[in-house]
Amino acid sequence: MSQQVQRRLRLYVDFMSQPSRAVIIFSRCNNLPVELQLVFIHKGETRSPEYLARNPLGKVPLLEDPGAVCSGEGPEGDGCLRLPESAAIISYLSYKFPELVMEHWYPRSDPVQRARVDAALHWYQGNIRAGAMRLSFHKVVAQRLGLQGDERVAADGLKTLKLALSSLEEYWLAGESRIFMTGTQPCAADLLCACELEQLRMLKVQLHGTSLVEILAPYPLVQAWRQRVKQACEPHYSDVHSVLVKAAAVGPSPKL
Amino acid sequence: MSQQVQRRLRLYVDFMSQPSRAVIIFSRCNNLPVELQLVFIHKGETRSPEYLARNPLGKVPLLEDPGAVCSGEGPEGDGCLRLPESAAIISYLSYKFPELVMEHWYPRSDPVQRARVDAALHWYQGNIRAGAMRLSFHKVVAQRLGLQGDERVAADGLKTLKLALSSLEEYWLAGESRIFMTGTQPCAADLLCACELEQLRMLKVQLHGTSLVEILAPYPLVQAWRQRVKQACEPHYSDVHSVLVKAAAVGPSPKL
Repeated sequence: MSQQVQRRLRLYVDFMSQPSRAVIIFSRCNNLPVELQLVFIHKGETRSPEYLARNPLGKVPLLEDPGAVCSGEGPEGDGCLRLPESAAIISYLSYKFPELVMEHWYPRSDPVQRARVDAALHWYQGNIRAGAMRLSFHKVVAQRLGLQGDERVAADGLKTLKLALSSLEEYWLAGESRIFMTGTQPCAADLLCACELEQLRMLKVQLHGTSLVEILAPYPLVQAWRQRVKQACEPHYSDVHSVLVKAAAVGPSPKL
Repeated sequence: MSQQVQRRLRLYVDFMSQPSRAVIIFSRCNNLPVELQLVFIHKGETRSPEYLARNPLGKVPLLEDPGAVCSGEGPEGDGCLRLPESAAIISYLSYKFPELVMEHWYPRSDPVQRARVDAALHWYQGNIRAGAMRLSFHKVVAQRLGLQGDERVAADGLKTLKLALSSLEEYWLAGESRIFMTGTQPCAADLLCACELEQLRMLKVQLHGTSLVEILAPYPLVQAWRQRVKQACEPHYSDVHSVLVKAAAVGPSPKL
């Protein structure tokens, strides 16, 4: 029993982190036996010596699996897998709990469908996240962390994001049967993209010159898809985003 | 026979594209039956109506597999898989040709090792590529394509790249046994990261204020790793990079 408790999977997250939220929602939607451990970025906790010992990259989310059979080539040394990167965590959990995680989230048996989801996940990183993350960071988050945002980088992020949203509208969501990015049901990339876009709720027209509603206005398919992703993940989607919704309502105070 | 020819896998690439080079080198190192089809970015060919019909994202590389069994949910319509995103292409080819592609490139049987390679691939996208690609694009490539580069975005790219190189040095390549990013042999992420860094050969101190040698100077483990990746992939690594090496020697002319 005590061994079983020790061997429980642990997920280090901050509810204000877009990829953290996606992994939490994924875990809850699929009833995964994963224990959450909060790490507050704005309190400097991802940079504490204790956390850096777990994850030298200093980022969340991180998955710890003490029950993983490690080949010994990893950086852990103690036989406990410590896995960074949200998309890799979702894929790992899908293989680890095949009886709990439906194939549509991350396909294990159909190589073509897996390839499409992999492509969507890598595209998300280089497009939706590359754009939206720089936009939200340089417009809002930097200020809240006491750092200096760069308007030119934010503008470049917005440009990247608009191109990404065009591709989401015209490629990933093209065709009547593709109501999600890779088919008729949501995959890991749908969730990661949607959680990334939610972060832009913090943008206010009067303060930042633009807003999520304004940014999404030219993309009706993206708007409808965003509602579908939310619906497919309720009540967890709203629950997990409640911290962000509160933070967005508070405005640009440095305290969250 | 004619059916076999038609069913051959086709890879659309530009030798000046970092991810294209990685996929070509990977295919050649593993003797994959993949036919190359050149698409020249600087001639606008990734934006031609003909190419956009194949890949509406307008990017290279793209893999076409007419022999894939598609579930019909994809955008193709004609039953031919058209897969974007270099990391997804490498993973797909690894599953498709298990007898040709060694496990270390992309692990299929060890879930922990696959998770580590997945994490390295996603990290590459958001860090090495996010930094180096914006740096090379805004400093060199934009000008060669007749576009306007943005020095502030280039500077932000360089900042991202330096943080990424620190993580490569201190995390991915930490520990004596980890001579490559995920162990003792190269994986897909090693190749993608190395090919991304090669692009910075086009930077000249006198023209751009920095160079690849200068950028890598503080990172001895990264320098040694870069040579190991090259050695592990010869003669293909040098062959495939010869176009880039020539372009870098030519200087900042708009003609490649």
